[in-house]
Amino acid sequence: MTAHRFGDMDPEAFRREAHRLADWIADYLANSSRYPVLARVAPGEIRSQLPSEAPVSGETFDDIFRDFEKIILPGITHWNHPGFFAYFAITGSGPGILAEFLSAALNQQAMLWRTSPSATELEEVTLGWLRRLIHLPDGFEGVIYDTASISTLHALAAARERAVPHVRHRGLWAAGEQRNARTLDRLPFVVYGSDQTHSSIDKAVILLGLGHESLRRIPCDADFRMRVDALRSAIAEDRAAGLTPMAVVATVGSTSTTSVDPIREIAAVCAEHNIWLHVDAAYAGVAAMCHGYEHLLEGAATADSLVVNPHKWLFTPFDASVLYCRHLDLLRSAFSLVPEYLKTTDPSAVRNLMDTGIQLGRRFRALKLWMVMRHFGAEGLRDRIAEHMRLARLFASWVDDSETFERLAPVPFSVVCFRATGPVDAIQIDVDALNERILESVNRSGEIFLSHTRLHGKYAIRLAIGNLHTTEQHVRRAWNLITAGLSEASRLH
Amino acid sequence: MTAHRFGDMDPEAFRREAHRLADWIADYLANSSRYPVLARVAPGEIRSQLPSEAPVSGETFDDIFRDFEKIILPGITHWNHPGFFAYFAITGSGPGILAEFLSAALNQQAMLWRTSPSATELEEVTLGWLRRLIHLPDGFEGVIYDTASISTLHALAAARERAVPHVRHRGLWAAGEQRNARTLDRLPFVVYGSDQTHSSIDKAVILLGLGHESLRRIPCDADFRMRVDALRSAIAEDRAAGLTPMAVVATVGSTSTTSVDPIREIAAVCAEHNIWLHVDAAYAGVAAMCHGYEHLLEGAATADSLVVNPHKWLFTPFDASVLYCRHLDLLRSAFSLVPEYLKTTDPSAVRNLMDTGIQLGRRFRALKLWMVMRHFGAEGLRDRIAEHMRLARLFASWVDDSETFERLAPVPFSVVCFRATGPVDAIQIDVDALNERILESVNRSGEIFLSHTRLHGKYAIRLAIGNLHTTEQHVRRAWNLITAGLSEASRLH
Repeated sequence: MTAHRFGDMDPEAFRREAHRLADWIADYLANSSRYPVLARVAPGEIRSQLPSEAPVSGETFDDIFRDFEKIILPGITHWNHPGFFAYFAITGSGPGILAEFLSAALNQQAMLWRTSPSATELEEVTLGWLRRLIHLPDGFEGVIYDTASISTLHALAAARERAVPHVRHRGLWAAGEQRNARTLDRLPFVVYGSDQTHSSIDKAVILLGLGHESLRRIPCDADFRMRVDALRSAIAEDRAAGLTPMAVVATVGSTSTTSVDPIREIAAVCAEHNIWLHVDAAYAGVAAMCHGYEHLLEGAATADSLVVNPHKWLFTPFDASVLYCRHLDLLRSAFSLVPEYLKTTDPSAVRNLMDTGIQLGRRFRALKLWMVMRHFGAEGLRDRIAEHMRLARLFASWVDDSETFERLAPVPFSVVCFRATGPVDAIQIDVDALNERILESVNRSGEIFLSHTRLHGKYAIRLAIGNLHTTEQHVRRAWNLITAGLSEASRLH
Repeated sequence: MTAHRFGDMDPEAFRREAHRLADWIADYLANSSRYPVLARVAPGEIRSQLPSEAPVSGETFDDIFRDFEKIILPGITHWNHPGFFAYFAITGSGPGILAEFLSAALNQQAMLWRTSPSATELEEVTLGWLRRLIHLPDGFEGVIYDTASISTLHALAAARERAVPHVRHRGLWAAGEQRNARTLDRLPFVVYGSDQTHSSIDKAVILLGLGHESLRRIPCDADFRMRVDALRSAIAEDRAAGLTPMAVVATVGSTSTTSVDPIREIAAVCAEHNIWLHVDAAYAGVAAMCHGYEHLLEGAATADSLVVNPHKWLFTPFDASVLYCRHLDLLRSAFSLVPEYLKTTDPSAVRNLMDTGIQLGRRFRALKLWMVMRHFGAEGLRDRIAEHMRLARLFASWVDDSETFERLAPVPFSVVCFRATGPVDAIQIDVDALNERILESVNRSGEIFLSHTRLHGKYAIRLAIGNLHTTEQHVRRAWNLITAGLSEASRLH
């Protein structure tokens, strides 16, 4: 039966297909390892199997789902696969998937309190839960965005709002009104990150009109942590040149190596110079809930803002990024704008989420966070995050014990950066090329997927653990594949 | 049974709960009208029923779902209710909900082609389908963002990239290098909208560092369409003052009244002065696929960019906004940034979606668009959109035929703006207050939810039709409730 002329999908067809999908997804989650983790299709292969025009008549969901399995599924890289060790490994967990199913059906658009009181208030409640679990003080108010890129963008927009008088109305013209600015050959504002800070900060300064040259990348120490002495010098130099240090972005769990910047010392520098401190804890912030890691974010207590992504390492389906900010009023004064058609007679005490950002519309993302946190519980979340860290340390110990591999960075959380140093009998080899070949070879296996980075100029393989289906057995299998990859690459050499 | 210590939710518990949810959602969609459409809770009522700490131990999904029904559901404003006539009425349709369920399970993060070839290529295919259905020429390349606010932000970022030399690197300093700029007392760039243009354009110019004063709102004619003569005069005036007209935002289906700006004439002005033309067709763009509306976007053929939101009137669950752009390379040159850990050896021909925007991470939103378009088919989509327009015209005819109501704007699509003019026997009444009381009274009914706007200074009630469950019977019931609301409000007067 195809679609009716009007109305939604036939209710009984929906029920039938929803049940079929429930089984398909349950099977998928239980057996995702039977798929090759990295899609094996060639560029254009999916596109070429699909028509260039929408069908004229409606089709049954049965037909559509058949094409999903035949055409779309082979082009899926399985982020929910136990052998996914690339980038940051993530989990669309059971309770999170169920919550997204429900959220799609409710189709909430939480721009105003009245358009979804539950989405608005549950966001506040769950972000309070998360804040307490990671030991951030009360002064931090939370708001959910889609991605860390957007959270960081808002943090830097708030920093700009504080640093540049009248920027909302006058834009960066106000820069020209600053002391000395007319004698400068550039905008006077500077944002600081380290050479390990995420690229979202580059995109943010570009979007905000500050220009890429406003970003100063401070060098790191041997363990990829921002050098506070270098930060101090850069700030002093910039101030002497008549520039205004606007914000520092420090990282807890950087993207390449998961290094942790010395937040407390950086916070002291920022306090001294009245610079906005934004902490990027998108990946590793949740580790602060684990026993022995309670002090992880202690230095961030006086930061102005901090981002942590439940969709990274808190088992929440993508997307859900949380910005905690001690001055959310600055974001409101930057962005609040209420046209007549959105005015309400609700009490002024209610929070309208559209006031804290660039996006008017907002999905009901707190629902999945709530269901995930309740289903696993604080101890369950802790145990799982701790287990991922244990597995990473275990893998690191194999690397450390090996004569043909070396570790390239400390392992504070669940990511290991390492490389093969070459077969023992090789005199002169291109180590980078060797490791590239190993990576390609293990990724071709279909059993695991790893990515790479470059550290102190060396090509480094990254193994990231973060999927709930990943067990010690999968990590052990990864190590076996990697060592076999080295043998194969050496033979080919 | 509660959660295990490690791993995801128990697979059989997931299966059981997914089936239960399938039934719950099927029942919900079939009977959403049994809930009051506008949530009846008081501010703080949801929050006060929830603990301030996450549970220590994990809980069964059964317990969590019980609280969802008891605590969360009463705080839901039912956007998927046939009596939802507020703002823009939307639909989370059956095929779209199923697609979101699947998308959450696959948990794709489509930043790079290789991290999801299917999400990347299906986005290209479905946006080609939609583009052809709404009769936009081939030159428009599409990309999916979350909201129209973000689509419009990217459009204006591309306009800024074109208008301001070296803005990526130097920021808005480059402004100071423009001819005459040093003699100005403001940034030299101007963005034009009408007094009906959506507030997202205000937020975009603020975020981009242009400042709110860079936005010029051109007056409209009596039917809320941008006056092209006034636009011409404003541009001439600004150019004479040494300013640089940067972009014009024209609207097809404005938020208050769904008015349509004279796009062809505006496009001619923009071409003449080399100004970026962005067309906001977020709501009404899809109407261009209907018989008799094929020419709706004809004038936009030479626009630089256009936004249309499948989550508004194309039955796709929130969120999914499409930006079509004829110079997506400009967005790429504004934002493309590839750190080592995201470099791939894939052929340079592949499209990496992270290159076209501020957000690195992207959900697999094309899946729901694909399933919705296939399930309803082009004719099915047309019929449904046309039916909503028929219902709006029908409602408008009742307003027009009434002695106690008047229509306040034309009805080009599916939104009717009107007001009660008062009981015939009233000599002197506050008409605005009367209509506010009518709105409050009908919204209290729980059967329908309407919102308001203000037109030529008059408080106007808006009835927006866009939910697939809405039938003529619901629209008729709305009219009865509104006329009864007038009687009640008049008695109270």
